[in-house]
Amino acid sequence: MTDKAVAAAKGLQNVIVGQTRLSLVNGTEGKLIYVGYKIEDLAEHATFEEVIYLLWHGELPKRQQLDELRRALQAEMHLPAAVMGMLYAFPKTATPMAVLRTAVSMLALYDPKADDNSVEENRRKALQLTAKVPVIVAAWERARNGKEPIPARPDYSFAQNFLWMLKGTEPQPQEAAVIDAYLVLLSEHGMNASTFSARVTTSTLSDMYSAMTTAIGTLKGAAHGGANEEAMRMFFEIGSAENVENWFNTYVKTKQKRVMGMGHRVYKALDPRAAVLRRKAEEMSRATNNMHWFNLAVKLEEVARQDPEFIEKKLYPNVDYYSAIALYTLGIPMDQFTPLFAIARMPGWAAHVLEQWADNRLIRPDVEYIGPMDLEWKPIDQR
Amino acid sequence: MTDKAVAAAKGLQNVIVGQTRLSLVNGTEGKLIYVGYKIEDLAEHATFEEVIYLLWHGELPKRQQLDELRRALQAEMHLPAAVMGMLYAFPKTATPMAVLRTAVSMLALYDPKADDNSVEENRRKALQLTAKVPVIVAAWERARNGKEPIPARPDYSFAQNFLWMLKGTEPQPQEAAVIDAYLVLLSEHGMNASTFSARVTTSTLSDMYSAMTTAIGTLKGAAHGGANEEAMRMFFEIGSAENVENWFNTYVKTKQKRVMGMGHRVYKALDPRAAVLRRKAEEMSRATNNMHWFNLAVKLEEVARQDPEFIEKKLYPNVDYYSAIALYTLGIPMDQFTPLFAIARMPGWAAHVLEQWADNRLIRPDVEYIGPMDLEWKPIDQR
Repeated sequence: MTDKAVAAAKGLQNVIVGQTRLSLVNGTEGKLIYVGYKIEDLAEHATFEEVIYLLWHGELPKRQQLDELRRALQAEMHLPAAVMGMLYAFPKTATPMAVLRTAVSMLALYDPKADDNSVEENRRKALQLTAKVPVIVAAWERARNGKEPIPARPDYSFAQNFLWMLKGTEPQPQEAAVIDAYLVLLSEHGMNASTFSARVTTSTLSDMYSAMTTAIGTLKGAAHGGANEEAMRMFFEIGSAENVENWFNTYVKTKQKRVMGMGHRVYKALDPRAAVLRRKAEEMSRATNNMHWFNLAVKLEEVARQDPEFIEKKLYPNVDYYSAIALYTLGIPMDQFTPLFAIARMPGWAAHVLEQWADNRLIRPDVEYIGPMDLEWKPIDQR
Repeated sequence: MTDKAVAAAKGLQNVIVGQTRLSLVNGTEGKLIYVGYKIEDLAEHATFEEVIYLLWHGELPKRQQLDELRRALQAEMHLPAAVMGMLYAFPKTATPMAVLRTAVSMLALYDPKADDNSVEENRRKALQLTAKVPVIVAAWERARNGKEPIPARPDYSFAQNFLWMLKGTEPQPQEAAVIDAYLVLLSEHGMNASTFSARVTTSTLSDMYSAMTTAIGTLKGAAHGGANEEAMRMFFEIGSAENVENWFNTYVKTKQKRVMGMGHRVYKALDPRAAVLRRKAEEMSRATNNMHWFNLAVKLEEVARQDPEFIEKKLYPNVDYYSAIALYTLGIPMDQFTPLFAIARMPGWAAHVLEQWADNRLIRPDVEYIGPMDLEWKPIDQR
């Protein structure tokens, strides 16, 4: 600690650590913008591939540029045979996020230019990792269920290929549309914890694989990407819309439990992604003739939003709340919700790593020492 | 970004992000203290095992406590057979730090309680990972050279076992003493980038394996743990003490190259660890009858320290400068310097993770958006 040191708010809340051209999160007004475009417009009109292009090039693609990106992504939707082999040898009980973290780290061992940090190589790695992460997630789902992996299809979009590799059946248009919207909505979000951790790793001049491995490990936590799974577990625990008020009064009012998927460090208004995901969750629930979980979630939102503490603290459903319902209705296993979040966020993480390289300075904060001082060494038998 | 947001210095320089009881880094005076004890005293008197105990329990161990810790560490100095098998199947060209990052991440898959974040389980994981990291590093060195792994010996200290597992020959007392001092000196260092990144990962409530995987990936960078390897490469490039002035004038004076291993974000005086490591490097060089690299390093320090810019910017040898000479003289392969740093830092990282859990708040900073605003969506054929 030096004399010039200044104390920051705990958790670096409201501390601006740098600049970005990627996204604007306006938590007060509940607005989210990617490179100038409102998230509502992108969710309605853009495919995930268009958003990837936008994040990596700073503008929307023309048709030829988009076609090229699609082909390039599809061409990379496979794993080195050795990595696939090891994935199939992992214990079937392993957590999908731990498998994803390990497999992404392992890909570096098969990349002769893993430690070439030039812009060109980092862009190549960004593309390859974005394409390979859904392959890992889908392959692990099949491996742990004793099924063979399914190769990606060149005629499918990114979202279609994920569902295809996961399930091995032709994805329905509505299903693919929900996955595509989910990927668009979650692909970028300012200086969230996983993005920040990837930038800290990059700031030491470490490589893209290290940064992405860091990001996955950080996303894994229940207070970040793990929250969608936690939300779904909570819906299960509540069981039905009829039980919402009783559960809320018994556990939330008495501070024994929190409503998972409500509240956000930055948003003090409705998360604009939550509004879109609520519609998607409702559509999927109608299409599958199963309104049970959607109705439960709507009821819980109503009850919570009438609570004085939720009003005062401005706790609204966040991106995890209705996405849990949408993904569950789609048949995505609960512990694969967070890996799907990682698939969506990979292009955003990679774009931040490229920004960090373009104007890097080691991220090395300070800390206040509050331990003992001036202790004298004593030989072991005199302690 | 919200109205209350405040801008921090780039790279979070001098920004205090929290409190710690683990170490005090006084960069102005060149002082380093672990839990009340001067680093000079610890380097002279303490074994690595005593420092591990100090960092994890806040006090030096009595003899029985130290014996118990030693036995517990030795009992964990092995890998699951499946992990060892995969390590031997990795491409022999892989970077040791990438292998270490992958293997540590993989250990989670074989730990049924990987996601149990209780204090007891986190302490168990800290102990196991501290014991297993040298096994991974040594096994990889043997694997890539087509040699069988060597099991740890119960009668050896931590430092002795590392050398034993690496080389398969009885370690000389002086060699083991240098490794032990190195491990003591590098085991903890305030809120450095790798430690900070591990805390960011932990702050989302992610698990110990994720945090340690993050830390290894962050340490890997050339501006952090990778610097000792970079320093040795620089010494090779210079070639001999006679060539130092010419090299310095040709490359450093003209800003084409930097002196690797000199200068530090926090230290604006001689790094106290560098002073100890200089002595160790000299001792090892004398013992092996090879003063060549030590003399080169001393000469370069002299030349650099007379340079007005080095004087003005207070650039002194840091921990990486003389440790490169000490480790090279010991016969440690250059690209294993940083993995050895990771072995040393593991107990410090783990102690910070335990501190983070004890008083956690999500580390989620803010960022200033400087990209375009209010762009209107255009269909692809109108772009």
